[in-house]
Amino acid sequence: MQENELYQWLAGYGIPVPDYKFFPLHGELISEPYPVALKIVSPGIVHKTEVGGVALNLDSPQELEKARERILANLHSHGIIPGEGDGWIVTRMYEGIELFFGVTWDPAFEKVILFGAGGTRVEIDRDICYIDSEAGEEEIKHAISRTRIGRIFTDGFRGKKYDIRLVVDLVQKLQRLEVSELDCNPVMLTENGLVVVDARARVGDLPLPGRPLKHIPALFQPVHTAIIGVSGHTEKVGYALAKNNAGDPDCCYVNPHLDTLFNKKVFARIEDLPEIDTAVLCIPPGALQDSIERLIPKKVKNIVIITAGFREAGRDERFLQELADRYGVNIIGPNCLGIYMKGKNLTFGPESMKNGEVNLFSQSGAIVAELMDKALYRNIGFENIVSTGNMADVDFGNLVYSYQGMHAINLYIEGVSNGKNLLRAIRQRKVPVRVFKAGRTEAAKKAAFSHTGNLAGNYELFTGLMESAGAQILRDINGLLYPYDLKKVLIVTNAGGAGTVMSDLISDKLLTLSGEQVDELGKVLPHHWSKNNPIDIIGDATHERYLKVLEIADRFGADAIYVLVTPQFMTDTEDISRIFVDHAFHTQLFPVLLGGVKMEAARCILRKAGVTYFEELTEAVSFL
Amino acid sequence: MQENELYQWLAGYGIPVPDYKFFPLHGELISEPYPVALKIVSPGIVHKTEVGGVALNLDSPQELEKARERILANLHSHGIIPGEGDGWIVTRMYEGIELFFGVTWDPAFEKVILFGAGGTRVEIDRDICYIDSEAGEEEIKHAISRTRIGRIFTDGFRGKKYDIRLVVDLVQKLQRLEVSELDCNPVMLTENGLVVVDARARVGDLPLPGRPLKHIPALFQPVHTAIIGVSGHTEKVGYALAKNNAGDPDCCYVNPHLDTLFNKKVFARIEDLPEIDTAVLCIPPGALQDSIERLIPKKVKNIVIITAGFREAGRDERFLQELADRYGVNIIGPNCLGIYMKGKNLTFGPESMKNGEVNLFSQSGAIVAELMDKALYRNIGFENIVSTGNMADVDFGNLVYSYQGMHAINLYIEGVSNGKNLLRAIRQRKVPVRVFKAGRTEAAKKAAFSHTGNLAGNYELFTGLMESAGAQILRDINGLLYPYDLKKVLIVTNAGGAGTVMSDLISDKLLTLSGEQVDELGKVLPHHWSKNNPIDIIGDATHERYLKVLEIADRFGADAIYVLVTPQFMTDTEDISRIFVDHAFHTQLFPVLLGGVKMEAARCILRKAGVTYFEELTEAVSFL
Repeated sequence: MQENELYQWLAGYGIPVPDYKFFPLHGELISEPYPVALKIVSPGIVHKTEVGGVALNLDSPQELEKARERILANLHSHGIIPGEGDGWIVTRMYEGIELFFGVTWDPAFEKVILFGAGGTRVEIDRDICYIDSEAGEEEIKHAISRTRIGRIFTDGFRGKKYDIRLVVDLVQKLQRLEVSELDCNPVMLTENGLVVVDARARVGDLPLPGRPLKHIPALFQPVHTAIIGVSGHTEKVGYALAKNNAGDPDCCYVNPHLDTLFNKKVFARIEDLPEIDTAVLCIPPGALQDSIERLIPKKVKNIVIITAGFREAGRDERFLQELADRYGVNIIGPNCLGIYMKGKNLTFGPESMKNGEVNLFSQSGAIVAELMDKALYRNIGFENIVSTGNMADVDFGNLVYSYQGMHAINLYIEGVSNGKNLLRAIRQRKVPVRVFKAGRTEAAKKAAFSHTGNLAGNYELFTGLMESAGAQILRDINGLLYPYDLKKVLIVTNAGGAGTVMSDLISDKLLTLSGEQVDELGKVLPHHWSKNNPIDIIGDATHERYLKVLEIADRFGADAIYVLVTPQFMTDTEDISRIFVDHAFHTQLFPVLLGGVKMEAARCILRKAGVTYFEELTEAVSFL
Repeated sequence: MQENELYQWLAGYGIPVPDYKFFPLHGELISEPYPVALKIVSPGIVHKTEVGGVALNLDSPQELEKARERILANLHSHGIIPGEGDGWIVTRMYEGIELFFGVTWDPAFEKVILFGAGGTRVEIDRDICYIDSEAGEEEIKHAISRTRIGRIFTDGFRGKKYDIRLVVDLVQKLQRLEVSELDCNPVMLTENGLVVVDARARVGDLPLPGRPLKHIPALFQPVHTAIIGVSGHTEKVGYALAKNNAGDPDCCYVNPHLDTLFNKKVFARIEDLPEIDTAVLCIPPGALQDSIERLIPKKVKNIVIITAGFREAGRDERFLQELADRYGVNIIGPNCLGIYMKGKNLTFGPESMKNGEVNLFSQSGAIVAELMDKALYRNIGFENIVSTGNMADVDFGNLVYSYQGMHAINLYIEGVSNGKNLLRAIRQRKVPVRVFKAGRTEAAKKAAFSHTGNLAGNYELFTGLMESAGAQILRDINGLLYPYDLKKVLIVTNAGGAGTVMSDLISDKLLTLSGEQVDELGKVLPHHWSKNNPIDIIGDATHERYLKVLEIADRFGADAIYVLVTPQFMTDTEDISRIFVDHAFHTQLFPVLLGGVKMEAARCILRKAGVTYFEELTEAVSFL
């Protein structure tokens, strides 16, 4: 599209474009008021500036005429001879702050709007944010606030005030624009308005949108289950799955070569099963389609495919999505560890998991296995676990959209194929959604691709869109193991240094102590305590001082109190750890036992009592 | 200084300034060639632009004259009436890339040069680096490379090439300039040169430089030691110090109220001691000066003051520096945990520390205590530990400058008063210097101040200067516990997800496998292994596959191999952990045992055998 056509087209959407006039190649150039800019318009010239096709700040008809000659000479020196259909655009000169707006089409997120600092800064600074085409006003503002240039809307700039609504309005117009690629640079912003001074677009057939977001609450309520492909060989996953469900009378086993397993009858054929809602399949890839079709008459709703060897091995798995759509069932996997739902452990991971509050939906089965094992050690319980595997059908969007519980949702993601649906689901969330995204660096993207066949995508685009939609991005994978949602916390510490380090990690979550609270604590503390949060109760603190301080701080209304214990000369670590076992507090307490040998017995006390504790500051804040 | 005077002064140092002419307030304004800029010059006007005192792009004498009237009207509207001594500067218009150069005076680092993106970007982007006034060419280039604008010197910009030597040259001139505050903005950069278009300076008496950097190698070689203020009461630090040195025949105890302690004679008075090189004092603050003076005749070289209650409690401690200077001794502390030197444990921290390779110099005694305890648990040995305390005399600069060993130096720093000396010491280092700096956020700065009385300073300035001088900035405090200096590593993993996450953490340290190496590994691995580093040996790997892969990878010349083990269905964790105990490898191996319950026995095997291992990915890379 030529510049004059583009201006017209943008103006049709209410987008502010310059006052401009089009002149034929050899026509007279006149314009008012001066100064003006002159630009060549020719289908063959995409980057006008680079071939000397633009002249700025022209003050008179004479200068316009001289500029035309100069531009033609420039073009000539680049081997460009404009044709008869070509011409000139003369526009007013605009001043203001240079902004950048763009539209791009991402394979996972479809249409995405870009906003940031414009002019040459696009290339040097990449001070850009990403905005989903379906983002509402608040989400747009949130994205803008994450750019450096965005500060001018809150702080002003050099005594001038700029209205963020101008930017939001243009973003919303770009959201409606039917285009897959557009660059507006610069867009000139003044206190009174903005105008798209220069733009380039590729208009053509829009790519097709992805699958609609399906609602699958049944996945979270398995009752009558079956494991297809149980095994008596301990080294087979069909054995582990059977073992993890040996105590469940509503779980049926299927294997044509077995009669009983774990004192349970084994069905020879799927046809022999009673009605079931959830089936787990650990059978050869070639047997999957047939088995799924034979499960349909059993009223199955959820099919979990443990079997590997599909996309990650370069083999086609699209038939699974087709089966899911044709029969209206939910397919998890293939290539996964299984699912755990409120005590029903349909995974081949550890048995005897504790029921609890953590929701973990993970694209990596090994990460699930690791976190389950760690949770066992630390007495952490799960509400639901889904090892998503290759996501031939059910993906993160479906899971977040359909979860109806009360606790935070933690996601481990390497790459998604339908990010748009995940954003839609996150926008409707009623609980916090936390995301750990692997594949930030090129090396990690390569590693992720080699083990899942997933493209990891652009990390900044992914995390930017997720954050603006309302998800929290975790920087530490350990954060996936905790269900807590904390806004304001207290730190009680016997080591000023550790309190300082922790403050750096969660500076925006520190509750500010009131004067009365400082006075109250002062009554039980040595005079040189910190009089501040972190509450530094000094290195010689024993369990008595810890207890007195915690009893007072318990009334301060924090969401949690981190209790840092370092092994100093007077520190009675075991007695301190018993505080968390023997005393009841209103506030959630998190002991953070820093050290090694001197902390072993204390940690043991907490582990035995089922108290959640941390061994590292970074782990303690990993979910914040 | 007026603009015309400033131009002259800068030009005197060989700094490129614009061609300019000065005109009296009502004199005729003429200039060649056009276009030009016109600026008011008046002692009362510091920020010309903000009062409309500048006109740009003037094309003729007529425009110059109109601009003068416009500027006078602008000034009038701001209530400014120029006096008879005031005048005008007319300069050529300069085009190019806008840069910022500055000089500032920091309380800890004294004179510091700033460089970055200029014009309005100084305020919006703060794309700035800090350069020490003593930095050499390579250090200057290193700093520049950490700005975004610095990319134009490597990548060019819009087809043009820019020469970093122009920037280095101007920085070096600013290093020589006798000024404590200077802003040059913008400095216009073209392919052919640069020119300081606008500048402001504060010239006056320069602040005095800090203490010279003294060399204190004797600190690291204590032989004949004394503990002044030993105690028989187990809750006193004088007891712990005595206990930690009970087995050392060269360590004398002093306490007027004791005869013997731990079967050792206790001297009643300092006068009774034999000659000693190192004394540790845990006596009341008021007794310090007298004791130090009585130690001088004993030829003491190092005095370690455990005693607290000085600057951190608001009490003057400058007499300690005066004593150190007067008698030529090294004073450590006050308010510290002591020192540990190659087996001599002059701390009141844990006894029976392992001798090893880690050097830890820390401003926080509690952090020392925590890391010593953790090291005991993990079988990590120390070469030297210095708990620096308040640094009344010996500071980080002295320690880094005087260490003559072979291993990396790890520093925990909250705030320094003589950063210039530390930079000088780091520049002369023969071993890696790693720094964890607490006090990045305002909350943490407040916490640090309340427990040490130290101002934490500007984090970006501190870390920028340190990094350019050659130190490595640690983001995770756990990194202080390891002596390793790794350039290229391999990752062997049974979990693709964990390998991906780790790749994100150390993407620039991954060794690239050659085609032959891939072929060699392929002979012992399933066909769907990753064929890449991380070497994903697939979830069903047992110890046999781990061993085969490690025996091959051992020949690849990596500085270390991280061996990630996650508890998957087939994982024989104990047998895998025995590989690290039973087999000898050329390459340093780091087992990373991820999980909980299933890893406990394996961790135990490694701990008992004294093998360094990790439980978290973040910890495993904390020192890289």
